[in-house]
Amino acid sequence: MKNFTYYNPTRIEFGRGKEKNIGKYISEFGISNVLIVYGSDRIRKNGLFDTVAQSLAENGIRFETLGGVKSNPILSKVYEGVEIAKAKNIEAVLAIGGGSVLDSSKSIAAGALYEGDVWDFFIGKTVPTKALRIFDIMTLAATGSEMNNFAVVTNDKTKQKFSLAGPATFPTVSVINPELQATVTNEYLAYSAADIFAHSLDLYFSATYFPEYIAGYVENILKTVIRTTEILLHNPTDYEARGEFAWAATQALNGSTFCGVEGNRYDTHFIEHTLSAEYDIPHGAGLSIIVPAWMMWQKSQFSERLERFAKNVFNVQGVDNGILALKQWYQKIGTPTTLIEGNIPEKDIPTLVEKLFGISRMTGAESVYTEEMIRTILEYAK
Amino acid sequence: MKNFTYYNPTRIEFGRGKEKNIGKYISEFGISNVLIVYGSDRIRKNGLFDTVAQSLAENGIRFETLGGVKSNPILSKVYEGVEIAKAKNIEAVLAIGGGSVLDSSKSIAAGALYEGDVWDFFIGKTVPTKALRIFDIMTLAATGSEMNNFAVVTNDKTKQKFSLAGPATFPTVSVINPELQATVTNEYLAYSAADIFAHSLDLYFSATYFPEYIAGYVENILKTVIRTTEILLHNPTDYEARGEFAWAATQALNGSTFCGVEGNRYDTHFIEHTLSAEYDIPHGAGLSIIVPAWMMWQKSQFSERLERFAKNVFNVQGVDNGILALKQWYQKIGTPTTLIEGNIPEKDIPTLVEKLFGISRMTGAESVYTEEMIRTILEYAK
Repeated sequence: MKNFTYYNPTRIEFGRGKEKNIGKYISEFGISNVLIVYGSDRIRKNGLFDTVAQSLAENGIRFETLGGVKSNPILSKVYEGVEIAKAKNIEAVLAIGGGSVLDSSKSIAAGALYEGDVWDFFIGKTVPTKALRIFDIMTLAATGSEMNNFAVVTNDKTKQKFSLAGPATFPTVSVINPELQATVTNEYLAYSAADIFAHSLDLYFSATYFPEYIAGYVENILKTVIRTTEILLHNPTDYEARGEFAWAATQALNGSTFCGVEGNRYDTHFIEHTLSAEYDIPHGAGLSIIVPAWMMWQKSQFSERLERFAKNVFNVQGVDNGILALKQWYQKIGTPTTLIEGNIPEKDIPTLVEKLFGISRMTGAESVYTEEMIRTILEYAK
Repeated sequence: MKNFTYYNPTRIEFGRGKEKNIGKYISEFGISNVLIVYGSDRIRKNGLFDTVAQSLAENGIRFETLGGVKSNPILSKVYEGVEIAKAKNIEAVLAIGGGSVLDSSKSIAAGALYEGDVWDFFIGKTVPTKALRIFDIMTLAATGSEMNNFAVVTNDKTKQKFSLAGPATFPTVSVINPELQATVTNEYLAYSAADIFAHSLDLYFSATYFPEYIAGYVENILKTVIRTTEILLHNPTDYEARGEFAWAATQALNGSTFCGVEGNRYDTHFIEHTLSAEYDIPHGAGLSIIVPAWMMWQKSQFSERLERFAKNVFNVQGVDNGILALKQWYQKIGTPTTLIEGNIPEKDIPTLVEKLFGISRMTGAESVYTEEMIRTILEYAK
């Protein structure tokens, strides 16, 4: 294993009814004024908002609200939150929603204690070393944001989808109640599964050094996602499957899969972020289009690892059968596997190549994300 | 998955040369006076002590020392440490050694900020809610103590081997450099492997609810231990195997294997603690004697899980073959599998049953750890 530092101070409160204790969890840290960030009005209608408001009231915690966060969250919403946080002396941000809401909340929490423009964190000008405390109640499992310090936000002016991460942006307490995640549509469940797969495969098929322990660890996550997704597509209220799906999603991006690994990149995420920023398709859908194409592009380089993946995850033999099995599984659960299925016209490929290679150059990654690589992958994705 | 809380704030610094930064890690917390706790003089001779002393000096940290901690660490040594800590205004404890040294250090750290007798924590009179900060450099992988808040200590007067755990006894920073663990003898490597197996199997074969995700997670730990132990017995300096072994050991008892699990007990540890306290045999050796016997005792209750274990861990079919494969593996790596091999006379069984059932009654566990259960397992272990 290569040298690494592992540190993850987020406390997970997992299970039925845990959201009812959110006021208690927050008050443990002496906080009495929070900003609740959420997406659609669904949580107002289904009672979750009231449950939270009551728990906060019982613990003497005041709150402001900021609703309307959309998937592929945007910077202008973050600015709005930062403004409220600064104006109202907010002490912590409470996210109620999925990864987009939490990523917005992390950004708000960091921006609230920063003098400059919060976008500075995303363009690498500086790192968030302080932030308001972050709490969350997850209504969707996918991004793993509940147990890491990453936040991905799209600049709605420049269409750039970038990320921040710093020592201060780990959530303090994350509530994961699988029951609250049972109303997600089958479509979004499939996108979530594709998202978890992409995190894991980005790592599995890019690391230049990849310990066997970690390979087995990641395969167990993937097998859990396959098994539980198939159960949930037929029975969305299966609590056990929902719980294991949620926990696998958390583990897939809480840092544990990176321990001792070297040279891993985020190839599929790099390409997908531009797809979803340009075409406003769900992140997971963009990923299931890109992942098999990317695996085709690099199959000769990782043939041994691909064979292992094929056998251990899909129980098939050989590199090509492994990629095919993955593609068929995406089709089975209902996520797109071609640009056309994702409503991205083939004729846009040259423009996309140009845009992506532009970002590649801008971030100094042009030797890794070459024009040829980008074009080949997009061609495979036709 | 059943409801759970997961919280583990320990920072891991893993890899080559990390011990050279120990002064920096400690000074990050504003600490300038530590107590170094260690076992034999080996670390004085091999240069590790000097490396640490130099790093502390470079960071303006003074230190006292307490050497001579033995495996199956004893309470009188803890008392000694508590006395030094109180007399010398120690701010943190730095353990250099294996689980025994770290467990002693945790106990000293808790005792130093407690008015009463530190043994109170072990007999359940109270819980350590505050403790000096704990740092460690692990020279042996096995107990997982470097990433949990448990400490097991034997009261040398009463021969009771009990444990403490509290919110304050997580190490702040743990240094795991596989190179420092390369000098362990093959004998002790095998005991360590047996220890990791026992933690994992105690859980695997006692949980009344055991999520498949966790089953796969634990199997990956066990397969890693099997693979790397076999490499290390032939080539003790294989850095990659040593690293994966160490990391698997940490993961096996850092709380992650308990997430969502219900009803798990510590059957084999319960029995073994008395064996090692009475006969002063290594903990791992005691465990490899008890585990297969305990699996025999309860095989009808967990037949399905035993079949899964047999297939996924040892690639054999059926309950009995699974237990046999485990026993043969213990023999292969050189840990005892019978009382006689552990130099525990058969004629002592009645006395042992009496002692163990006494503890069982004292701790209110007589309905679980019945006299018959204890006798049957010890008989199987003949």
